[in-house]
Amino acid sequence: MSYAWHETELRVRYAETDQMGIAHHSNYIVWFEVARSDHCRRVGVPYTEMEANDVQLIVAEASVRYKRPAFFDDLLLIRVRPAEIRRRSLRFEYEVVRKADLELLAVGETLHVVTDKSRRVRSLPPEYIKLFEA
Amino acid sequence: MSYAWHETELRVRYAETDQMGIAHHSNYIVWFEVARSDHCRRVGVPYTEMEANDVQLIVAEASVRYKRPAFFDDLLLIRVRPAEIRRRSLRFEYEVVRKADLELLAVGETLHVVTDKSRRVRSLPPEYIKLFEA
Amino acid sequence: MSYAWHETELRVRYAETDQMGIAHHSNYIVWFEVARSDHCRRVGVPYTEMEANDVQLIVAEASVRYKRPAFFDDLLLIRVRPAEIRRRSLRFEYEVVRKADLELLAVGETLHVVTDKSRRVRSLPPEYIKLFEA
Amino acid sequence: MSYAWHETELRVRYAETDQMGIAHHSNYIVWFEVARSDHCRRVGVPYTEMEANDVQLIVAEASVRYKRPAFFDDLLLIRVRPAEIRRRSLRFEYEVVRKADLELLAVGETLHVVTDKSRRVRSLPPEYIKLFEA
Repeated sequence: MSYAWHETELRVRYAETDQMGIAHHSNYIVWFEVARSDHCRRVGVPYTEMEANDVQLIVAEASVRYKRPAFFDDLLLIRVRPAEIRRRSLRFEYEVVRKADLELLAVGETLHVVTDKSRRVRSLPPEYIKLFEA
Repeated sequence: MSYAWHETELRVRYAETDQMGIAHHSNYIVWFEVARSDHCRRVGVPYTEMEANDVQLIVAEASVRYKRPAFFDDLLLIRVRPAEIRRRSLRFEYEVVRKADLELLAVGETLHVVTDKSRRVRSLPPEYIKLFEA
Repeated sequence: MSYAWHETELRVRYAETDQMGIAHHSNYIVWFEVARSDHCRRVGVPYTEMEANDVQLIVAEASVRYKRPAFFDDLLLIRVRPAEIRRRSLRFEYEVVRKADLELLAVGETLHVVTDKSRRVRSLPPEYIKLFEA
Repeated sequence: MSYAWHETELRVRYAETDQMGIAHHSNYIVWFEVARSDHCRRVGVPYTEMEANDVQLIVAEASVRYKRPAFFDDLLLIRVRPAEIRRRSLRFEYEVVRKADLELLAVGETLHVVTDKSRRVRSLPPEYIKLFEA
């Protein structure tokens, strides 16, 4: 079974381009995070609330496979879904798609460890797990 | 009377370029901050110590005048000096110079208000003022 | 007479925050550009078309006055309008407003010189001037 | 057999921190690039020369494993070495180490495809291969 994709739309900023004329590859990591935050907010677990409840999702791993470039002013769909929901870790996967032609530009993954503010591993509150699984 | 310039050297990163083939103009604000942090550390008032002492220098104004572009891999000298040292505010001025030909690429200014961690205005500890004035 | 404001909505990204817990001040320059690009696209002079017609709007000056902080996940309205439209230069002004409470967080300004791709000053095509003035 | 590590030193910028109080994870991708550019320059294949010779190293994959956080003002050593040198692709690996205590903060990898400026796959000039292998 796999979870449903959630989608965030964003437009490539001029500041995100590089002298190759394409969006610099480091931005994908930021876009993944934008989509992930949106996802958390929509399922009912906004980051700000998590942090207020002494829950942090620390990034332990991140990877991207770049297939085609994104250009300035392109409207992109950043898709995210949980790939693995455990008590002490969450894995998300991502797709970056150009809205105009639905070309798949990149795929990626992040792994997060659940900690408190002092970065000690802790468990996700069960109600958060339910919300992520819903 | 004016204060002495302090200089930080840095190299333009590929990620800092844009599709015009030059360093994106937003980076100068970041470079000013790099030079300012270096300056504070060298005069004996590192940011980390300031923040530990409940002193924050909040940015109230920033401005840049761009004269010539900086390119990828250029070695730059970022010069900073206090322009005005008051109990509750500090003004710094900046120059960005290309090391290879000493061309002046940009000048700028930032104004900082002294606050505590809850962003209430407070005074700079007198020993900090002395260090900045030295 | 002054021109009408144009508005772009964006949400503060986690990557845009700093350890003070607020959006880092360098992002405002990027947000101004996002609003400016949107504005140009909507009046019918998209950057991509300008660049294809050998017109560049080089940033000559940028300034920001920060009034209140923006926080992670805040929805912001970035307002832009031309302040001065000349054949060889354009001045834009900006406001950053938090959507939830309409607090004014920052104001700013950028000055642009019109050049060709080799950075030689040139004139804005008259049809562009009309579109900006409309 | 494995290649020798090459090391670049850099200091964590305030703008690179996030509200968790650590360097945001997207910066590691940028730091890898800084180290890689330095490496290429030192072995005698600077990016600027590559681009002038119609050679681009397009990023096809990037991954990072984060072990411990980096903090503002930390001096970091970014280590890079080729992991695989082929005619049409290059793989680099990285380590991020805090200079003060030599703690290993992160490891990573990037895969690059060799293309010309129109992003068509091409071969690395043999003299470049020799320089990378040296």
